[in-house]
Amino acid sequence: MTIEPGDPAISEFDTAIALARREDQTDCYDATLDSGWMIGMGINGGLLLALAGSAVAAELGTQDGAHASPLAISAHYLSASSPGPAVLRTRTLRRGRTTSAGAVDLWQPSPEGGEAIRLSALATFGDLDDPAPEVRTSTMPPSLPAPEECVDARNGAPPGFLKHAALLQRLDLRLDPATSGWAVGRPSGRGEMRGWVRLRDGREPDPLMLLLAVDVLPPVTFDLGMSGWTPTLELTTHVRARPAPGWLRLSMCTRNLAGGLLEEDAEIWDSAGRLVAQSRQLARVPGQISR
Amino acid sequence: MTIEPGDPAISEFDTAIALARREDQTDCYDATLDSGWMIGMGINGGLLLALAGSAVAAELGTQDGAHASPLAISAHYLSASSPGPAVLRTRTLRRGRTTSAGAVDLWQPSPEGGEAIRLSALATFGDLDDPAPEVRTSTMPPSLPAPEECVDARNGAPPGFLKHAALLQRLDLRLDPATSGWAVGRPSGRGEMRGWVRLRDGREPDPLMLLLAVDVLPPVTFDLGMSGWTPTLELTTHVRARPAPGWLRLSMCTRNLAGGLLEEDAEIWDSAGRLVAQSRQLARVPGQISR
Repeated sequence: MTIEPGDPAISEFDTAIALARREDQTDCYDATLDSGWMIGMGINGGLLLALAGSAVAAELGTQDGAHASPLAISAHYLSASSPGPAVLRTRTLRRGRTTSAGAVDLWQPSPEGGEAIRLSALATFGDLDDPAPEVRTSTMPPSLPAPEECVDARNGAPPGFLKHAALLQRLDLRLDPATSGWAVGRPSGRGEMRGWVRLRDGREPDPLMLLLAVDVLPPVTFDLGMSGWTPTLELTTHVRARPAPGWLRLSMCTRNLAGGLLEEDAEIWDSAGRLVAQSRQLARVPGQISR
Repeated sequence: MTIEPGDPAISEFDTAIALARREDQTDCYDATLDSGWMIGMGINGGLLLALAGSAVAAELGTQDGAHASPLAISAHYLSASSPGPAVLRTRTLRRGRTTSAGAVDLWQPSPEGGEAIRLSALATFGDLDDPAPEVRTSTMPPSLPAPEECVDARNGAPPGFLKHAALLQRLDLRLDPATSGWAVGRPSGRGEMRGWVRLRDGREPDPLMLLLAVDVLPPVTFDLGMSGWTPTLELTTHVRARPAPGWLRLSMCTRNLAGGLLEEDAEIWDSAGRLVAQSRQLARVPGQISR
């Protein structure tokens, strides 16, 4: 099927975070994890975060207006998700005047029978159109070449990476040449990654899409000269502003790889030059024993 | 009562995170929030995080050895806690080979009757004595004068702050003169806070105590020239190493105050010069409407 850019009615992302509420249970939703969102051996953690956010939004009923945006969402990743059906069980924690909060667990049928829990998340929703005028941002948008001067991840990444990066068919991801030397065997050693991203089907960013975007850059361990998979243990994202349409500018870095774990700090800037999301995850260093 | 330094048997911190399991419910614990841990109009958020971590440890039964340390804990703060009884309800999410995870909700009797939920948290526990030898830390311990050359928060802070900082009777908190100008009306405007902390009763730091320590510096908004309370919406801490005995070196900064919210990033370094914890919180800017 050909998807025309700019037609959000059939966005693959909206399909991915779509939920079917079970008629007999108000706090239980069915979803499908599509293999097109795989990275490495599992479903992308950002996509799961967006799906979790979508479920809490449904639980809180915030789509209708008040508290419609995920201000903060924290997910603990408990086992690797696989393509196929998923069940999301939600819970309202509190409905407040300026924020509301909920919890969600994501389960999948286990190959050994029964169900296996994939992640558990907490989310606080609020309003991003706060009239508070004061802005004191000392951080600057990362400096990187324009998207057309960056490396298209589909062309520049090594075949061993692309084989396990189905989601690059859906994401237009352009990597800063200064942080993509790893693809040709010349990592910078600084533990940085920068790039641009947009959805190939033209669906514009919104707060839920930012939850995906915080986790789409290749792991910063590549830039440290390490190969392999960095499974996420925990990922928290703060959505700080409603993103303008267009390209999102991404940066990610680590400052401490130790004891078999590393943190990855990501920032997203929108096309208007505004910091729209900050995230941090704790991940396992490649080559460590599995969960 | 005089407490001799070095006697952990009667540590105020251990008393604060002590839990009484209800005999009829395996997943329900009673605790007491002591007014000595107040800051501003509520109980310190770091103390609540440590209590939540203590409850998940009890739920998972990790005190006995395996998976004994909180690697990552995420709390969403739902309403302000007050001195008095609290009930913690826990849930095991998953027991894995290298990590185990649990969830906890903290409730208090509500003045309006019934119970009010104060926070909900997720925690992933594991082992901090991982033999992985590789350390790649690009971040450096913050540079600040020795504790005896810093400002004792009990002496240096303005009376309006001290009146609502009972926990300074329990914490020996020394502030870097370079980031304590706010106390005499000369904030630096950079949004930074640095200092040293240890427990006055001599109880040495451990992973649970780090969960308290990430939230004991005055809010960085003071250094931006703003006064008042910055209620936490969400706080995630990663414990990265087991701390050595002695003073903990703290730093906290913000890079984005916008839309009525700000993030505060904290790091803790131990006396051996090792980065032992990283945390980030999303908080409300002073003067915003309440939850």
